[in-house]
Amino acid sequence: MTGRYPSSLGTSDPTTIRLLGNDLAEDLMGSVGFGELAFWLLARRRPTPQQNRVFEAVLVALADHGFTPTAIVARLTYLSAPDSLQGALAAGLLGGGSRFLGVTEDTGVFLVAVVKNLDDLPTDDAAWDDVARRVVAAAKDEGRFVPGLGHPVHKDVDPRTPRLITIAHDESTYGPHLALFEAIGRVHPQILGRRLPLNGAGVCGAALADLELPVDLLRGVALLARAAGLLGQLAEEREHPVGMAIYTAVDRNAVEIPLDE
Amino acid sequence: MTGRYPSSLGTSDPTTIRLLGNDLAEDLMGSVGFGELAFWLLARRRPTPQQNRVFEAVLVALADHGFTPTAIVARLTYLSAPDSLQGALAAGLLGGGSRFLGVTEDTGVFLVAVVKNLDDLPTDDAAWDDVARRVVAAAKDEGRFVPGLGHPVHKDVDPRTPRLITIAHDESTYGPHLALFEAIGRVHPQILGRRLPLNGAGVCGAALADLELPVDLLRGVALLARAAGLLGQLAEEREHPVGMAIYTAVDRNAVEIPLDE
Amino acid sequence: MTGRYPSSLGTSDPTTIRLLGNDLAEDLMGSVGFGELAFWLLARRRPTPQQNRVFEAVLVALADHGFTPTAIVARLTYLSAPDSLQGALAAGLLGGGSRFLGVTEDTGVFLVAVVKNLDDLPTDDAAWDDVARRVVAAAKDEGRFVPGLGHPVHKDVDPRTPRLITIAHDESTYGPHLALFEAIGRVHPQILGRRLPLNGAGVCGAALADLELPVDLLRGVALLARAAGLLGQLAEEREHPVGMAIYTAVDRNAVEIPLDE
Amino acid sequence: MTGRYPSSLGTSDPTTIRLLGNDLAEDLMGSVGFGELAFWLLARRRPTPQQNRVFEAVLVALADHGFTPTAIVARLTYLSAPDSLQGALAAGLLGGGSRFLGVTEDTGVFLVAVVKNLDDLPTDDAAWDDVARRVVAAAKDEGRFVPGLGHPVHKDVDPRTPRLITIAHDESTYGPHLALFEAIGRVHPQILGRRLPLNGAGVCGAALADLELPVDLLRGVALLARAAGLLGQLAEEREHPVGMAIYTAVDRNAVEIPLDE
Repeated sequence: MTGRYPSSLGTSDPTTIRLLGNDLAEDLMGSVGFGELAFWLLARRRPTPQQNRVFEAVLVALADHGFTPTAIVARLTYLSAPDSLQGALAAGLLGGGSRFLGVTEDTGVFLVAVVKNLDDLPTDDAAWDDVARRVVAAAKDEGRFVPGLGHPVHKDVDPRTPRLITIAHDESTYGPHLALFEAIGRVHPQILGRRLPLNGAGVCGAALADLELPVDLLRGVALLARAAGLLGQLAEEREHPVGMAIYTAVDRNAVEIPLDE
Repeated sequence: MTGRYPSSLGTSDPTTIRLLGNDLAEDLMGSVGFGELAFWLLARRRPTPQQNRVFEAVLVALADHGFTPTAIVARLTYLSAPDSLQGALAAGLLGGGSRFLGVTEDTGVFLVAVVKNLDDLPTDDAAWDDVARRVVAAAKDEGRFVPGLGHPVHKDVDPRTPRLITIAHDESTYGPHLALFEAIGRVHPQILGRRLPLNGAGVCGAALADLELPVDLLRGVALLARAAGLLGQLAEEREHPVGMAIYTAVDRNAVEIPLDE
Repeated sequence: MTGRYPSSLGTSDPTTIRLLGNDLAEDLMGSVGFGELAFWLLARRRPTPQQNRVFEAVLVALADHGFTPTAIVARLTYLSAPDSLQGALAAGLLGGGSRFLGVTEDTGVFLVAVVKNLDDLPTDDAAWDDVARRVVAAAKDEGRFVPGLGHPVHKDVDPRTPRLITIAHDESTYGPHLALFEAIGRVHPQILGRRLPLNGAGVCGAALADLELPVDLLRGVALLARAAGLLGQLAEEREHPVGMAIYTAVDRNAVEIPLDE
Repeated sequence: MTGRYPSSLGTSDPTTIRLLGNDLAEDLMGSVGFGELAFWLLARRRPTPQQNRVFEAVLVALADHGFTPTAIVARLTYLSAPDSLQGALAAGLLGGGSRFLGVTEDTGVFLVAVVKNLDDLPTDDAAWDDVARRVVAAAKDEGRFVPGLGHPVHKDVDPRTPRLITIAHDESTYGPHLALFEAIGRVHPQILGRRLPLNGAGVCGAALADLELPVDLLRGVALLARAAGLLGQLAEEREHPVGMAIYTAVDRNAVEIPLDE
């Protein structure tokens, strides 16, 4: 197909716009929710209503966590360049990397790698616990963290975790990745010597893996959720600005040190 | 409130996460759709189900238009830096400026400026037509474009326009901004000397203005929609890559010119 | 030239790389300084050594101002996504907009607009003062700021201003834009009722305008300078990190307010 | 140092601006070149004139390579959002990731890892060749590429490579990393079974490693160089625009495929 660029996304002719094989105006607008369309675009298949409810619960869970680095960055960029809303949003999203927003994808990748190598899926908790013990011990031996464990604020329980598991059960999308994630939650104290909560970003990764979304695009789900959250931060910055106060507080507390210190 | 940073967005303590004055896990996850939450974040009030259906129809309408500059940019950035999905998404969104993605906001701003200066709102089409004649003539006199008119492909009718108007009627959110926009569609040929379609980006701006979203954040709605579309472009780039072919086609057709040409 | 993309920038064949009409390896590497090349790329003509010294002095003047919003943004983005240095740099540059980094361009645009409309260039300070009085008074009447006046820290004299003027005199690039800028510095207290310093960003805009760089690309000069400064900030963040402390200080001081406050 | 943010970069008081322990106006402006300042900021030490000439030669070598993905991205973003020069620059830089702009850093990291583990540095070519044979063979065994080898256009010799080596010799900065890189160039055909050129991005990484810049910031050098190049691309886009032609060529050649193809 020399010189042609194939796509199943948006195409148009003078009277019709097509998207994902459908007529945008007639079949999609007013009929498809935005979260549903986002799933469809990412997975290249339309979700069932059950899958969509879990997917939207994840998006809601990940949208905003207050004054995270991404939120501060968006607000300071808006302070500095208020003429470019897209720049403030983009700057915020650029913090969506390995550390603060990457746990969802890391957890999904971790769980998928384990599950796809199982010859048979465990059928009860005890069997899942055996698998979990093995992978937590292996991670410990290799000096790696198990993604999705631990939270700086929610030391005991991250409230998103039981809630998302309940929703997944309600919608019958609960599958092996959530099962393994819960098993890790049960067995890790025996191996690691302390009890850590299953965090919300991690349970989102597990739930999305059960929806069979492409695992290396899970960061994209977190970024989409955060895009809405950052727009909320910018809307609030217009009403209750804090950017100048943050900048001033930092600048005022600068202390010069010699280069070789 | 020295040294304190006020926010009604996300806050958390060891057992609870709050967002927009609600309990995130108990009240929002599984109960609020993602589009609904995005409206809430932007407008700082929860939409009615009617408002939400119109809002999500707008998001669906604006998500993707195929190989736009923003989509090409996202794909080429992913080609060049595949390790950073957030970079590819951010690069694409940075094209969401005045020209290709700004019509929604421009149209909203234009319509709101007219409507808020009307002493009394017209009550029939003939009266709206009078208003529309006045503003189109004024724009023409000043050499300004009327935003929302014209489309490079949909020369006659942009199919999104009648569809969104129907949805707004269905949901009883049709208000003065859509009324003025339709009147502009009726009267402009008499004044400008040619018939242009009311385009989809423009009708989205009019419909959002009727939802009373902050008009200088309408670009944010377009950016959120486009974030989903760009993730779809990147998901497709993984399956059916075109980035290298685009780059090669451009590079191969470079022709050196002298500096002073 | 259908389907061809003209450029006088980089082109290559199996044995040669050309840039700006020169052989990159033979004519440019080792012979042209980086600042000189940047001028050449922006202006599409090679600077004289005199012009280049003024240009590099501007770049040095604008590179870093400590914990500005752009620096904080770059550091927080690096904290959040340390795997993507380009993301942290890009996020910082996105604050290079109208407010914090735009003064250089705004001043240049303002001065160029005045100078190009003069029938004859003044030949002494008194005549420049007449021009300056007219434009400051006009700005005051229209409620507009005169760009380049005032500084939050350097209330009396911004030390960069006399230094850059001296360099421009030394290199014989001092021209009408710096002359007008200095005249504004002399006359504005009579008209505005208070004495403000000519700030460093403004004098850079005036000096660059005298170098006849394209005035709507002056922001680009500030961005290039800041790119070096931000890389310095990121290099320092690796050695003496402050990102986590800034984030924590903000997050710890969040206070929840009701939505309708 | 609770609540204080240490920095040796820019600080200011009402009469003075300091940067890197110097008085910006008196000591740096007009005295320090821009490339020299960039080295100082990145390495946190001032380069010698010899080191600086090599550093600036690298910046010149990496500034622009014509219609690369980063250049196309910057131009298309400028087409789409011409109101935001910083957005177009940032979008272009976001392509500075692992694939197209990462070779400089990858090569530096590779060479440094080898050199720092040598008990004694070889003192002649034959001894360097032994080291090189070992590391090329090891890379081959592990199925990894040796970074810095090969180029899509310069199949035989990349003209930047011998030129930069000559400059490094001239300035007496030629050290173990360039020596190892040249040895790899001599021995790899015996091991890999084909002769590949030492490419320009790789030789830049080797030369920078010999300057003892922090090896995980070498990508930053490439990004700074590219920032100048992208500003040149944007300056040219204003004079000889190609963005619309590129967009149209892609869009016109889109072909709809079914989702499941």
